[in-house]
Order: sequence, then structure tokens, then C-alpha cells
Amino acid sequence: MASPIELALAEARAAAARGEVPVGAVVTDAAGAVLARAGNEVEARHDPSAHAEMLAMRAAAAARGNKNLGDCTLTVTLEPCPMCAQAASVFRVRRVVFGAYDPKGGGVEHGARIYAAPSCHHVPEVVGGVREGECGALLRAFFAARR
Amino acid sequence: MASPIELALAEARAAAARGEVPVGAVVTDAAGAVLARAGNEVEARHDPSAHAEMLAMRAAAAARGNKNLGDCTLTVTLEPCPMCAQAASVFRVRRVVFGAYDPKGGGVEHGARIYAAPSCHHVPEVVGGVREGECGALLRAFFAARR
Repeated sequence: MASPIELALAEARAAAARGEVPVGAVVTDAAGAVLARAGNEVEARHDPSAHAEMLAMRAAAAARGNKNLGDCTLTVTLEPCPMCAQAASVFRVRRVVFGAYDPKGGGVEHGARIYAAPSCHHVPEVVGGVREGECGALLRAFFAARR
Repeated sequence: MASPIELALAEARAAAARGEVPVGAVVTDAAGAVLARAGNEVEARHDPSAHAEMLAMRAAAAARGNKNLGDCTLTVTLEPCPMCAQAASVFRVRRVVFGAYDPKGGGVEHGARIYAAPSCHHVPEVVGGVREGECGALLRAFFAARR
């Protein structure tokens, strides 16, 4: 069975094939079952908030009819931006696992560092750098081809 | 004609009537035309990211088929949380006008202070405290009734 980061990488590759920035995300429950998976859909939806993480978390909660993802892990190929990092907090995600670090746009280990704010009510566990090389290479290849 | 903050207050009151935290938001274009308006739908959608601002910005961009809201003002009854503040940045909103300040959950003047991060690529103009009394009173009444 493919691991969550492998499924997220597959979503990222599918996003690239649609002309979207290649980021993919998967939400799994405590037993490891996949509740939702998504790739970026910013261009297709004309929606800059349609990041893979947002779509996957919304779909996971909708699938269960429960807004609380407190038993879940969000696995994503790129460090979440501040919007998605905060979304993981409001969905009460237990753990955020990400691939490539994003010094320019990330909001977990960089920039606004959402979980470091004392007012952040729910702080997920964070594991960064998983399959970092592959996750980052996808993004670099995508942007290099557009230059 | 009702002003944007009056329309946002009406959306907030309608949200309260549905049992949602009373926050409302409106997106207007440079000419002042209303592109979208929304109230909180967190409970109805089982979606903690369904804040009034997110829904209004997504609807405004969808209505125009253009993800860039660079000529638009987002008017909301409560200081946006970090998720919504970052969303306003990625939608490239020109101006964020809000009512009540939110020391506990806000992400503009409080907490993660999204727009203060050097890596925030697009920083909207911010005007806070508009009809602050009414906007805050709605929230206080809602939570007092639930205690």
C-alpha cells in the first residue's frame, strides 16, 4: 500500500499535469485509512485558497460529517503556508507531516510561524522534511519549465 | 444603500439566527459594487474553514472567473483570524476593513500578525474598528446566550 507521502506525491504530479503548482495532500485517520486526498486547484477553481491541504481537510471533514479532525494526520508535499497551517489548527488536526521546506511561503517553520503564536489554540505535532528531495524536485522542475 | 459594514452586520445577524458564530463579510469592487456577501457557515458545512471572509472571497472570485481581487475591499465584522488574513493576501485584496478587534483569535493586529511577516507577499491596507461597538456586541450577546 502506498504511504501517505507517496499518495501526496502522486496528487502533486497530477496537479502539475493540470498546470497547477505541484503540491498534493492526504488526510489519514488514526488507523491510517485515507479520508481524502487532493492536489492544488488554484487555477481550475479561480481560487487562490484552493491549496491541496485546504481541499483535503474540507473533504475529509465533509466525508465524515464532523468538523473535528482531531485523530487525523495531514500529509502534504510542501510546508503549509500560514493560511493552511492555521486551517490545520482550526480543523484540530493531530499531526502535520510535510515534505519540502518553504522558506519563501511557508508558515510553519518560516514567516508567520503560526504554531509559535501563544494565541494559537490548537497546535498539531509537526514533522517536516519527509521525502524532501522528491517533493522539492517536483516544484523546481515545474517552475524551471515555466521560465 | 446599505454600506458594506451594514451588509456585513446583516450577514452576521443571519449567521447568529442559524446558530453560527455571528461574523459576516462582504467583498466590494473599486466602484463599491457588492461582488459577494456571506456569514459564517462552520456548523452547517462541518467546515471550520468556512469563515465568512473565506466564503465571500471565494464567491467573489468565482463570480468574476478571476482569482485576483486586487481592486477589492473585504469588509468583515471581526478582525480576521490568521487563516483569513493570509487568504486576503493570496486573493490580493486591496483593503481589509474590519469591525471588532479580536485579541484572542485575530491574526492581523494580534497573534501571528500575518501582514507583519517580511515574507508576506501582498499586504492589504487595513482599517480596523469600524462600527466596532455593534460588531462586538453581536458576538458578546451570542456567547452570553450560550453560557
